[in-house]
Amino acid sequence: MKKFRVGIDIGGTNTKFGIVDRDGTIVTQGRMLTNAKDTVQGFIEDLYQHLYPMIEAAGGRDQFAGIGIGAPNGNYYTGNIEHAANLKWKGIVPLAAMIQERFGMSVKLTNDANAAAAGEQQYGCAKGMRDFITITLGTGVGSGIFINGKIVLGHDGFAGELGHTIIRPGGRLHAGTGIRGPLEAYASATGVRETALEMLANHPDKQSLLRNYKPEELTSETVYECAIKGDAIAKEIFDFTGQLLGEALANFVMFSSPEAIVLFGGLTKAGDLILNPTRNAMEANLVQVFKNKVKLVFSNLKEADAAILGASALIADED
Amino acid sequence: MKKFRVGIDIGGTNTKFGIVDRDGTIVTQGRMLTNAKDTVQGFIEDLYQHLYPMIEAAGGRDQFAGIGIGAPNGNYYTGNIEHAANLKWKGIVPLAAMIQERFGMSVKLTNDANAAAAGEQQYGCAKGMRDFITITLGTGVGSGIFINGKIVLGHDGFAGELGHTIIRPGGRLHAGTGIRGPLEAYASATGVRETALEMLANHPDKQSLLRNYKPEELTSETVYECAIKGDAIAKEIFDFTGQLLGEALANFVMFSSPEAIVLFGGLTKAGDLILNPTRNAMEANLVQVFKNKVKLVFSNLKEADAAILGASALIADED
Repeated sequence: MKKFRVGIDIGGTNTKFGIVDRDGTIVTQGRMLTNAKDTVQGFIEDLYQHLYPMIEAAGGRDQFAGIGIGAPNGNYYTGNIEHAANLKWKGIVPLAAMIQERFGMSVKLTNDANAAAAGEQQYGCAKGMRDFITITLGTGVGSGIFINGKIVLGHDGFAGELGHTIIRPGGRLHAGTGIRGPLEAYASATGVRETALEMLANHPDKQSLLRNYKPEELTSETVYECAIKGDAIAKEIFDFTGQLLGEALANFVMFSSPEAIVLFGGLTKAGDLILNPTRNAMEANLVQVFKNKVKLVFSNLKEADAAILGASALIADED
Repeated sequence: MKKFRVGIDIGGTNTKFGIVDRDGTIVTQGRMLTNAKDTVQGFIEDLYQHLYPMIEAAGGRDQFAGIGIGAPNGNYYTGNIEHAANLKWKGIVPLAAMIQERFGMSVKLTNDANAAAAGEQQYGCAKGMRDFITITLGTGVGSGIFINGKIVLGHDGFAGELGHTIIRPGGRLHAGTGIRGPLEAYASATGVRETALEMLANHPDKQSLLRNYKPEELTSETVYECAIKGDAIAKEIFDFTGQLLGEALANFVMFSSPEAIVLFGGLTKAGDLILNPTRNAMEANLVQVFKNKVKLVFSNLKEADAAILGASALIADED
């Protein structure tokens, strides 16, 4: 068994990479801008210049089981990045094959949400579980699903878009897709801000600490700060968000009956203020056979490490 | 490889059983009342008296790979029937183990909806597919899900209750569970009748052929008969039902990205009247990457045979 794996997380702004040992410790890591070069060839050359010396320093590529990559719109089956909106490389980019050739190491690639789920299963609170779901509550709402011990990819590699499932038919417009009422329109950072603005507008006479902030400063963090000071509207924002998130989670449970749902991302910083209404709404919408069975937990991985760990977890021990 | 498999479908009223050859032909079949005896021992003895002579006539149990059973609340992992509301046997009944002992043959058991999905994969329009969903639109709304070539059972064996997923939060009350707005409250036989009654009540001045029927005669069949005669309310009932069903299917697609969704049961007799609005609503609620990809089809298995075929399909070739 090889000593190390590489994990690469390609984001819209930064690309992070690290060398991970068998215990899930990131022994070296680095980052670079994703879009510094105009072409994917330029990106790969940048990556090689940054990353290959780390691989050499760790004993060379013979010590490595492979490279795992989490990337927006990454398709596990093909190793391609397909039409990623926030990357400079347009169309279908065979990134896994290109990196494999440049580095001379085996490469696996999937989308960032699936990589996060793989990380939870190897290093996080879903360790060893065969059936669980991770939900990332960040800028958007991402999800990774494990069933029977494997990531759910679907027939085309695009499964697990739970942020786009409709929870309020005819409800709030999702700007990115033009569809009304998906989970992401409510439980993302943008969604929480929109809820805050709506609630402040709906209660013009109600005092709220939130009125001290500019619209763009209204984040789940600032709402949290107001809520712990006892602000009623701030608390109501979490109650509402948790209600909708919990209803969505109930639907996911009745689909795949997971052992756990792991929540990750900015919104989880609100702690019990978001966890309690979420759990209550989930349980209230479950039929009897599922009640009080599903572990609803926050990820225990450090946010800074999770993406690299998750990407590295795509490489199996036998690789 | 053995020549035959037994399929047994245990329903609230009848238990059907048959001997299935490797091509999916039911070579003999029979039925008996499920609840004729008060105990499960009595049921098994009845079944043995009916079924074992058929097995003997087919060459004896050495010719058989095993017995597959579809039963309400059947748990594949344990082989138990757990708290089935419409059977006389209360609590947890280790039915697979009991039948295995009486017949001296290996037995697999799951719920009827999962068995239906297994039948579609071996003999129906999901033949050979690894990722698909079957939805049974009957008295209730059942579902069976295949992902990565396997039935989705979840960590406890109870996954795949898509009829209970909420599609109209705060909507129509589901009498069986006390939960508002699940798919089953709209797309089941009862749901269609309730929609019909609501629409007739909401439009007291509008003529409709449906007014010639008593409430209990309003089924998807009678609504269909009126719709093909041009009845506007009858057509609206299917449009509404298809709208809600299609929204629900969109959510399922964004979960598991199946190659196909196979619809089965009474409501499918309405043909394009239900299929078209369902497909339109599904496509309208899918984000781009899923659009125009999923095959939405009616089962091509004969309704009379499907349950036996599905149960027999639980037994793999190598068994």
